Amino acid sequence: MGVSLQQMYTQVHGESPAKRLAILVADDLEKVNDLIHNRMKSPVGMIPDLATHLVDAGGKRLRPMITLATSKMLQVEGDNPIRLATAVEFIHSATLLHDDIVDGSKLRRGRPAANRLWGNSASVLVGDFLFARSFALMVETGHLPVLDILSRASSIIAEGEVRQLAAIGNLDIPKQEYLAIAEAKTAELFAAAASVSAVIANAGAKHQQALDQFGRSLGMAFQLVDDVLDYQGLNSKLGKQVGDDFFEGKITLPLSIAYHSGNQSERKWWEDILDADGRSESDLEKAGQLIERHNGLQETMALAIAFSETAKESLSTFEPSPCRDCLLDLCDFVVKRGY
Amino acid sequence: MGVSLQQMYTQVHGESPAKRLAILVADDLEKVNDLIHNRMKSPVGMIPDLATHLVDAGGKRLRPMITLATSKMLQVEGDNPIRLATAVEFIHSATLLHDDIVDGSKLRRGRPAANRLWGNSASVLVGDFLFARSFALMVETGHLPVLDILSRASSIIAEGEVRQLAAIGNLDIPKQEYLAIAEAKTAELFAAAASVSAVIANAGAKHQQALDQFGRSLGMAFQLVDDVLDYQGLNSKLGKQVGDDFFEGKITLPLSIAYHSGNQSERKWWEDILDADGRSESDLEKAGQLIERHNGLQETMALAIAFSETAKESLSTFEPSPCRDCLLDLCDFVVKRGY
Repeated sequence: MGVSLQQMYTQVHGESPAKRLAILVADDLEKVNDLIHNRMKSPVGMIPDLATHLVDAGGKRLRPMITLATSKMLQVEGDNPIRLATAVEFIHSATLLHDDIVDGSKLRRGRPAANRLWGNSASVLVGDFLFARSFALMVETGHLPVLDILSRASSIIAEGEVRQLAAIGNLDIPKQEYLAIAEAKTAELFAAAASVSAVIANAGAKHQQALDQFGRSLGMAFQLVDDVLDYQGLNSKLGKQVGDDFFEGKITLPLSIAYHSGNQSERKWWEDILDADGRSESDLEKAGQLIERHNGLQETMALAIAFSETAKESLSTFEPSPCRDCLLDLCDFVVKRGY
Repeated sequence: MGVSLQQMYTQVHGESPAKRLAILVADDLEKVNDLIHNRMKSPVGMIPDLATHLVDAGGKRLRPMITLATSKMLQVEGDNPIRLATAVEFIHSATLLHDDIVDGSKLRRGRPAANRLWGNSASVLVGDFLFARSFALMVETGHLPVLDILSRASSIIAEGEVRQLAAIGNLDIPKQEYLAIAEAKTAELFAAAASVSAVIANAGAKHQQALDQFGRSLGMAFQLVDDVLDYQGLNSKLGKQVGDDFFEGKITLPLSIAYHSGNQSERKWWEDILDADGRSESDLEKAGQLIERHNGLQETMALAIAFSETAKESLSTFEPSPCRDCLLDLCDFVVKRGY
């Protein structure tokens, strides 16, 4: 089981900021969980079985929380925030199911990945099912621009995943390409999760743009921290294995920094190890040492913090409110969660 | 390369009915082809490469033709029929890419299946990309009910595929379940392809329902004939291999009829052969003989013809017109294409 956002928050900040956020969206988040389970229903039993396995494994629900909290900040009434938060989580879940096939993942959120239990075919199809259901939920809001934002985001996510696939094992990947992949595969959905709230609030282009910027920057910070955590200890508690990226040959920023700053023999080691068919635990240990030597984690974290600050600044467009404070907390949480 | 609809039509009916249909939608179909290529574009080269490989392999474009012809019958002006026909073909293409992973297909439309050339991962992601792009196209029509129809259809298609997956090798599958799977995985998209025209034409619920019924029945006829063709000779020209269903252990209606009508030793043979890890060409020959003995193909065709007649009757709601005549021709073509 994963660790709840509140538990993690508590580890980092002590009780109070987590409680503020949790209290803010707790009721809505419970409605989202109900709607998730309701819309995963199907007479075809394998679909809810597989989907429930993933969805109930204790994900952080970060993306739906962003939709809920930004909608609350804009004082949106009614069920549309619930519908959109659910739609966003469905897109995320579909992406995870398909990613685990692409990555050949063994674990997801501390449980065996769905494709390990039900097979790749079922994971492909249930992902498609969730994706289709997410669009049906958006239709129910009656806001066509929401579908525009989330369909565009979905195609960009797929593009990002293909780019990442093509970049596997390529040590020469420029930092800009790494950042572009992170933006496409992660930050785009964060941006959409936030900016749809401006649509259903009829808040206008300026606020929509600010929320897009907020979500996009927060998503970048989140992905960079994720890449750091893959070489650090804490995330073992989050159900993701330390070293996943390394074992899969993914060139994330910490590794890229160590490679480009390394001496000739270090660079040779990276080239050989990423060219190899597989990598061992002791390879991971050495990789960690080299990354440490060249400040790969610190530099990546510095960039994550900068993105988090940009996210905070984007919120200055909005009037001060308890909701806005919670979103500011969230920006801190995302970068501090591993520390 | 596949055989064009017109060539096939000519084989069946001689020149004239094919020409009528081809003339009717030729200009629009060319616009659809242009839009397909335009919307498959991506800075990520693998996406258009893989998608073009599938889309340019000479599919029949039956589903977009249904959207174009029904829109024309309802005198819809402007580009919305082109957009929707493209969206429908994108959903179909995404489904094919994902199906070929599920089925482990080697060939598609006479070419190596995309997953054989680019790998399963790329096929999963490019399918997702096309699916997302199809929804972006629907948004451009400005008609929310179109998104409702096609998102629902997409989730039903995925359900149908999962049901089919669960039914692999299960000889006891009732005829009703077989028909329900065919309806979900094939007829649902035909129904959507036709009924969206009523939406963009603002033609009202009665006409929308009639077009749904038309597409649904035509789709059933199409799927049943497809299952017949899998045990017959002609389809080798269409780029699908004869015996695909049998080799994959799919229980289609012709096989099911032969099994349920067979004597004890025949039933034993079916059970053993579908339980085996693989099936040979000589197994296929014997399967064909048993199906022949119990009129499996004739009975399946009789059902297909009945569905085709229902499709025709659904069109009686509409005033006589050259467009309606062409759609009637299409109903005949779908059942006669193998003869």
